[in-house]
Amino acid sequence: MNRSPTAILQISRRAALALTVALLGACAQMAPAPDPLPSWNEGPAKDAIVQFVRKTTDSASPQFVPPAQRVATFDQDGTLWVEQPMYAQVAFALDRVKDVVKAQPALANEEPFKAVVTGDRAAMARFTEGDLLKIVGASQAGLSIEAFREVVKAWAATAKHPKFQRPYTELVYAPMVEAMKYLRANGYRTYIVTGGGQEFVRAFADAVYGVPPEQVIGSMLKVDYSVRNGVPTMTNAPAVFFINDKAGKPVGINMVIGQRPQAAFGNSDGDQQMLEWTTAGAGARLGMLVLHDDAQREFAYGPAAGLPESKVGTFTQSLYDEAKAKGWTVISIKKDWKRVFAYE
Amino acid sequence: MNRSPTAILQISRRAALALTVALLGACAQMAPAPDPLPSWNEGPAKDAIVQFVRKTTDSASPQFVPPAQRVATFDQDGTLWVEQPMYAQVAFALDRVKDVVKAQPALANEEPFKAVVTGDRAAMARFTEGDLLKIVGASQAGLSIEAFREVVKAWAATAKHPKFQRPYTELVYAPMVEAMKYLRANGYRTYIVTGGGQEFVRAFADAVYGVPPEQVIGSMLKVDYSVRNGVPTMTNAPAVFFINDKAGKPVGINMVIGQRPQAAFGNSDGDQQMLEWTTAGAGARLGMLVLHDDAQREFAYGPAAGLPESKVGTFTQSLYDEAKAKGWTVISIKKDWKRVFAYE
Repeated sequence: MNRSPTAILQISRRAALALTVALLGACAQMAPAPDPLPSWNEGPAKDAIVQFVRKTTDSASPQFVPPAQRVATFDQDGTLWVEQPMYAQVAFALDRVKDVVKAQPALANEEPFKAVVTGDRAAMARFTEGDLLKIVGASQAGLSIEAFREVVKAWAATAKHPKFQRPYTELVYAPMVEAMKYLRANGYRTYIVTGGGQEFVRAFADAVYGVPPEQVIGSMLKVDYSVRNGVPTMTNAPAVFFINDKAGKPVGINMVIGQRPQAAFGNSDGDQQMLEWTTAGAGARLGMLVLHDDAQREFAYGPAAGLPESKVGTFTQSLYDEAKAKGWTVISIKKDWKRVFAYE
Repeated sequence: MNRSPTAILQISRRAALALTVALLGACAQMAPAPDPLPSWNEGPAKDAIVQFVRKTTDSASPQFVPPAQRVATFDQDGTLWVEQPMYAQVAFALDRVKDVVKAQPALANEEPFKAVVTGDRAAMARFTEGDLLKIVGASQAGLSIEAFREVVKAWAATAKHPKFQRPYTELVYAPMVEAMKYLRANGYRTYIVTGGGQEFVRAFADAVYGVPPEQVIGSMLKVDYSVRNGVPTMTNAPAVFFINDKAGKPVGINMVIGQRPQAAFGNSDGDQQMLEWTTAGAGARLGMLVLHDDAQREFAYGPAAGLPESKVGTFTQSLYDEAKAKGWTVISIKKDWKRVFAYE
């Protein structure tokens, strides 16, 4: 090894690579690896993630998963960020109604828009899912793909959550972002699989979660392609194309990914089929459900485990029982998370 | 640099990385890089690819593209493999009609199935696109996602092309596979964007092109999720969900990738909108169209450039003129490809 610098530069490529590997290996042994999940308390939930990663990435493990198959899927609302008291996208769409009505004044006299414009809180409290879908659709339809993402970005930069008085993008769960990063560091692609709008989430997913647009699967409006004044343009049409919720989640996963995930994270009945589909595969699979049982630090709702009922992010007792029966891990925010948000 | 082995192992991580980079750099200078595109003749088409890769991957270039945005899209039929005298998927579906009719005997008396079963070549020659779509749909509907891919794999392993008497999977264009590999070696993700069936192409895309399922975008049947005898199952339904052709191509690209490609490769009018959308973006963009002008080594059809008319893979003169006007490169198989197939 006592070669001159010139001699070192003359060694073969193979020798250089071997030396490189040896040097990097030696470096890796110098310091113990830091805890990849510092926002998690020690316990079964943290263990489940760490054990899953170890057994699927150790090439000596009988449950080793080749890198090409390392896919993990995450619901967004209630799994990666706060969904109470209403989905962020609904808050966004309600904030947009004024602009929508300005562009189409006739809507001011039509429900559900009239209730929003006139501030009729009683009528708004009675909104059905169909009403909300109309408002969400109207917040996006007619805008080009790029223009809509800019509108979302501008909103996310200024809108504040009613309880926490912080931007929604700061209300992401630090433990889940750590889990995503830990999985990615171990060769997993981390997809967001949301009942929310695909284009809505794409507007901030890279900045907030490190998830690029091609790894966001969501509900979609129809998109029209046309050439306007010589410029190819893609525009959101006022028609639902695909609802990526419940049984739609495995279908959306197959549409975009084309293979069964190894791991899936959710928090509500909307994620049941995604977890079923994921964990029914052979070999090591991980299914996890976030249970919101911490009214003090976040919110408490179920009705699973005796928690209060909720129309948003419903986690029924039957889903809870299925989780126990199938070996999915229920994450207790109260017990399993050392901190909920990064700013704490 | 005259340190003992022990000393070398004690140097800091930063120094080790610096040495690594220096060693690898020195190695890279030892031998000239082999030609990444050996099946291409020297000329404007090969140049266009090499120059595009250089200017978008050299960090000193004003047209540098960050790795996250390096997306290249490839049509399949006629761009990556032979599409004459009929699309491979149509040949597959015709071969499957016997099995389809066995499963649903009533179809034997219904057109277009009756013509296939009775071998009525005159009727088959009059098949419309709608007839072919029915046959293609029937070849897939009712099968689970996994079962259909196995059926396709089994067919691809035995079926032979009528002119070349070789499996279709050997009739991929060696120059295009080289272009895909060259782009991937330079940080590009290479997506297949086909009017053909997404599930059909996924069955062999990884083995044949090195393209994983999540990078195949194609036409889709509706997919149903259900739990059958306790087993979560996804089944192809007998209904078209999305046609990924013409204006559908940029829409399909946005649905799955969510960003505009930097480069797009096609060969027919079905690729016009994909190339328009791609090359209308800012910065360096690459649009390329394969012109089939080599009846001896492959096929000759257009009708662009005075070549014979074709119902399959039509390349009109107006698309040819648009290519010239917009700076897209037309690839002449006759002039630009040293060899067409890898087995030559």
